[in-house]
Amino acid sequence: MSELRYDPIKGRWSIIADERKQRPNEFLLPENRATINVPSPCTYHEDASKLAEIMVIPASEKQYDSSWQVRVVANQFPVLRVEGDVSREGVGLYDRVNGIGAHEVIVEHPDPNIDMADMKLQELVSVFEAYKARLVDLRRDSRLRYILIFKNRGGDAGGTMHHSISQLIATPIIPTVLVQELNAARHHFHHKERCIFCDMIRQERRLGERIALATDRFVAIEPFASATPFETWILPLEHKHDFADASDDDFLGLAIILRDFLRRMRSLLDDPPFNLVLHNSPSPHKRPGQPSYWTTIEHDFHWHLEIVPRITRIAGFEWGSGYSINPTPPEEAARFLKEADPDGGD
Amino acid sequence: MSELRYDPIKGRWSIIADERKQRPNEFLLPENRATINVPSPCTYHEDASKLAEIMVIPASEKQYDSSWQVRVVANQFPVLRVEGDVSREGVGLYDRVNGIGAHEVIVEHPDPNIDMADMKLQELVSVFEAYKARLVDLRRDSRLRYILIFKNRGGDAGGTMHHSISQLIATPIIPTVLVQELNAARHHFHHKERCIFCDMIRQERRLGERIALATDRFVAIEPFASATPFETWILPLEHKHDFADASDDDFLGLAIILRDFLRRMRSLLDDPPFNLVLHNSPSPHKRPGQPSYWTTIEHDFHWHLEIVPRITRIAGFEWGSGYSINPTPPEEAARFLKEADPDGGD
Repeated sequence: MSELRYDPIKGRWSIIADERKQRPNEFLLPENRATINVPSPCTYHEDASKLAEIMVIPASEKQYDSSWQVRVVANQFPVLRVEGDVSREGVGLYDRVNGIGAHEVIVEHPDPNIDMADMKLQELVSVFEAYKARLVDLRRDSRLRYILIFKNRGGDAGGTMHHSISQLIATPIIPTVLVQELNAARHHFHHKERCIFCDMIRQERRLGERIALATDRFVAIEPFASATPFETWILPLEHKHDFADASDDDFLGLAIILRDFLRRMRSLLDDPPFNLVLHNSPSPHKRPGQPSYWTTIEHDFHWHLEIVPRITRIAGFEWGSGYSINPTPPEEAARFLKEADPDGGD
Repeated sequence: MSELRYDPIKGRWSIIADERKQRPNEFLLPENRATINVPSPCTYHEDASKLAEIMVIPASEKQYDSSWQVRVVANQFPVLRVEGDVSREGVGLYDRVNGIGAHEVIVEHPDPNIDMADMKLQELVSVFEAYKARLVDLRRDSRLRYILIFKNRGGDAGGTMHHSISQLIATPIIPTVLVQELNAARHHFHHKERCIFCDMIRQERRLGERIALATDRFVAIEPFASATPFETWILPLEHKHDFADASDDDFLGLAIILRDFLRRMRSLLDDPPFNLVLHNSPSPHKRPGQPSYWTTIEHDFHWHLEIVPRITRIAGFEWGSGYSINPTPPEEAARFLKEADPDGGD
């Protein structure tokens, strides 16, 4: 069984995914080498009976010869497994949690050949509705502390499928990156009674130079300390802490700005591999006998999407320092995105 | 000019390397795509007059038609520049430090075709002597807070040269990863009066299952929460906080275990791309009017090498969570390394 392990020197958790165990010679296979993009054959538009189906959003019209518009299935090679109790233990200096969690695949569209950037707005809204439905459902599971929704597009971004999918991994501890963001937001609010994300949005709108796109409801920002060229955060303008509270109107607004951004990025960077993650409030569980430290207190978070095109390499300096070296200042990335042709490039 | 930028939400520093500025279409060049390994033509074994030479270790015998054994030159495309004063300022929510620092290339050997794994032990000792000499020299520069020595081997590890080189980047702030390790070590020592690295070594030697290699002076450990398959830390068995205090005997011991490890890794993983970093105590500068927070207090650190073969991908889950997913448990990696043939595979 997989397990989560903590190293107190590095202050890091790793998932030792024992069930995906690889012998050294398996790394020599072309499809396992870091550099090679070999999409596996797609099983997601096949007969539903072959997959453990978790939910579907039905198709409103039968245009793709499919009864469903969005379909969520169990990952066939899960990193964490849903069966069993969570066991947390110390191991000398270290800590260990057994690999309880969930790992699901959100098949975004019945057409295996369509990109997220080419979906209709209502189709994207359905994808976000599926994200929300899974958040709401999995939050009922008191073993899970966080539900991370993400997308790997293209081999260099870790994608293995041609079919456009998102994934969800729910974990029995809150991931490090989220703890950092939550702590920063809580600390800021505690001292100032203002949301740190709202403050950032205000500062960026005043300056304008790092705003790539803006609508009446959302903004796409190239962050001041971008770790990679064209790293982009999409945030609701109004303070919203929980994606699960979003309305269909919010989702339509998100679909408009995300699709516009994806098209501009595709045209500028020649359809780059990219990752997309949804950062949201943690699950609001209370542990037995105590309130949860991270309940969805309204000012501890401001949900957002982060998109990272995978066009630069992580090398020894980045590994050893934790710094990124970014050759494209975010001010220039914002300007390029603003000037890009969303319909160009393909 | 480059600058270091801090984001309080992410708690991260990035180096915006303006002088390496790339327009979007430059990312489309094959050699700039993340996946393509095109070694640049090597200039490091050319006439010294073409490069800004910083130091040399002379050759003891003239076997490579070279007067030098190890040669340190200025990086031709430096991430940070050595001229000027450090300026630190707040920018609204954020922080900025101008890009003062040093970026040097340590040419490890006059033969452009030899790998570190094939160098003679005394040749490796000369490489470590060059590391030490640069540490000692750059510590005199009171603007610099840390000197990170690292190595990128192979295109997927960020290497661009066929010639075996190491690099050094000195920064005006201590890198995040080091601050984490230093804080962990200081906190542990403060409470227990024991070095956390020494405690880890004792625990690992007692258990044995994650020890890949051991000599009378050094140990190579697959860390409990390894972020990647075959991540390896090489540490001196005896408590040593500063690489710059190491003797030639220490360097010979390090050469023996490092070369053995590199040969086993090459034979097991088919000559993988890899990164190597030296984690050492910070520069012991005192700032004007106050003692440095991180002086080289003997128990704040235990120097070590970290080696990471680049054989897995970083995808959306890793980006969004800060967790790594490692398909090879470190106990198995240690067993494979112990059983590997250091002379096999090439």
